[in-house]
Amino acid sequence: MTIETISEVAAHGGVQGVYRHASAATNSDMVFSLFMPPQVERGEPLPVLWYLSGLTCTHANVTEKGEYRAACAAAGMIFIAPDTSPRGPDVPDDPDGLWDFGQGAGFYLDATEAPWDRHFNMATYITRELPDLVADHFPIDRNAQGICGHSMGGHGALTLALKHPGHYRSVSAFSPIVAPRQVPWGRKALRHYLGANDAAWRAHDSVALIEEGARLDDLLIDIGDGDPFLEKELRPELIEAACLDAGIALELRRQPGYDHSYYFISTFMADHVRWHAERLSR
Amino acid sequence: MTIETISEVAAHGGVQGVYRHASAATNSDMVFSLFMPPQVERGEPLPVLWYLSGLTCTHANVTEKGEYRAACAAAGMIFIAPDTSPRGPDVPDDPDGLWDFGQGAGFYLDATEAPWDRHFNMATYITRELPDLVADHFPIDRNAQGICGHSMGGHGALTLALKHPGHYRSVSAFSPIVAPRQVPWGRKALRHYLGANDAAWRAHDSVALIEEGARLDDLLIDIGDGDPFLEKELRPELIEAACLDAGIALELRRQPGYDHSYYFISTFMADHVRWHAERLSR
Repeated sequence: MTIETISEVAAHGGVQGVYRHASAATNSDMVFSLFMPPQVERGEPLPVLWYLSGLTCTHANVTEKGEYRAACAAAGMIFIAPDTSPRGPDVPDDPDGLWDFGQGAGFYLDATEAPWDRHFNMATYITRELPDLVADHFPIDRNAQGICGHSMGGHGALTLALKHPGHYRSVSAFSPIVAPRQVPWGRKALRHYLGANDAAWRAHDSVALIEEGARLDDLLIDIGDGDPFLEKELRPELIEAACLDAGIALELRRQPGYDHSYYFISTFMADHVRWHAERLSR
Repeated sequence: MTIETISEVAAHGGVQGVYRHASAATNSDMVFSLFMPPQVERGEPLPVLWYLSGLTCTHANVTEKGEYRAACAAAGMIFIAPDTSPRGPDVPDDPDGLWDFGQGAGFYLDATEAPWDRHFNMATYITRELPDLVADHFPIDRNAQGICGHSMGGHGALTLALKHPGHYRSVSAFSPIVAPRQVPWGRKALRHYLGANDAAWRAHDSVALIEEGARLDDLLIDIGDGDPFLEKELRPELIEAACLDAGIALELRRQPGYDHSYYFISTFMADHVRWHAERLSR
């Protein structure tokens, strides 16, 4: 598998790269960013933090505004930001013409319904194809992978970690969608991608997965109490209750005054990088 | 004088604001960003770092990509990012239709030539009008002001500090244009804004100002040795020689592999914030 280097720029002692490759999982070209910290010079595999972005985002939002590089350079951590969906003129998009579904809104699952199933296979892309590709080109330690995400990407981080025990050794999220079955953004996406199939919906819903026995060692969630999507789309109380019932050590931090933006994410990004670094170095 | 709040968002324990106001100096509306650190709650005036951006930028570039908030929150420092020129349909622009002159390229001087002199009075705007306006609305300590800038904004920071002794108590720059009289970007701007008047050009050229006796206590400059503009536009060796002759303590750091981008700036931003904080707290 080959990758094309779009850019590589010195940053925080390491290199911030952006790369393009042909994806079999999504039947399209995909772009991702990868920060290689200065510790690469030691010649040993490095832990990696996968960051899944939210609705409308590409790799670029967190790459430009996420403020993760200083913390990753301190921790010797690779940081990878994939795109949020396949894109392009051949890729179907929201029939309503809105921004909350289709391109930019892959929801990190493998679609089963036409026309989405040909391209929207982000779960396979994130958990299998992209790690294989990255491992071919960069010194990642596949036994030291953490996953983190924002909003729809928080949903992705949580569900992929819950569905693939042992694959990710640390999990955290900013403002995640925790129960897509129960909120408008989620219901729209699940209906299109998976059809009217509640068993399939439950398999892509963090709260339902935990209720049905999926487990994490522990979990860090930051969420702003001034987030405009808090009550309608995010509903952190649902995962709080599920984790309490399941005995999952959830550290849920309701951050006073913070919203849903990268000003919020960048404020707490270093905490998340350290959370992952601590667990990945055990 | 009144200001309009465009946005105020919680970030790094403080508030990142963006504001608009009518400017008499530039005969246009101007937008700036201001980060208020959490120490505002102490109720005392706070030191302020002015950051002047480079060609094509608005306040937004450094506000989104500059990674200054963590360091400013730690230091209790206000950070203000003005725009780089007046803008709007009534404001004249580059007759060549390029990006290196006119709107987005005010060069932080007061133009003397028509049609530029009606709007392009960025020196008065930055040193007098905007500080007065900000002091009316935010608790800035006018005796603790530092100035910093990038590229054209590095030129602005250096020349304004050299021309206004005592106004700024600390000065630093990223990749500054140090001798606009001697480089293409600078010569184009000075010709339009000031006409064919070498005395006027020398009054807006850091190297010439130092040669003619202007002084700074000390000066920090970071510059990437992979900067594509290094040899043609920036020419740091000229200010290095001028400072050596003048006995100005210049710390010129040639950063290996870094370019001209915000990946470079954000890498060293915290160093600059600390440089200013140290001097402004004396």
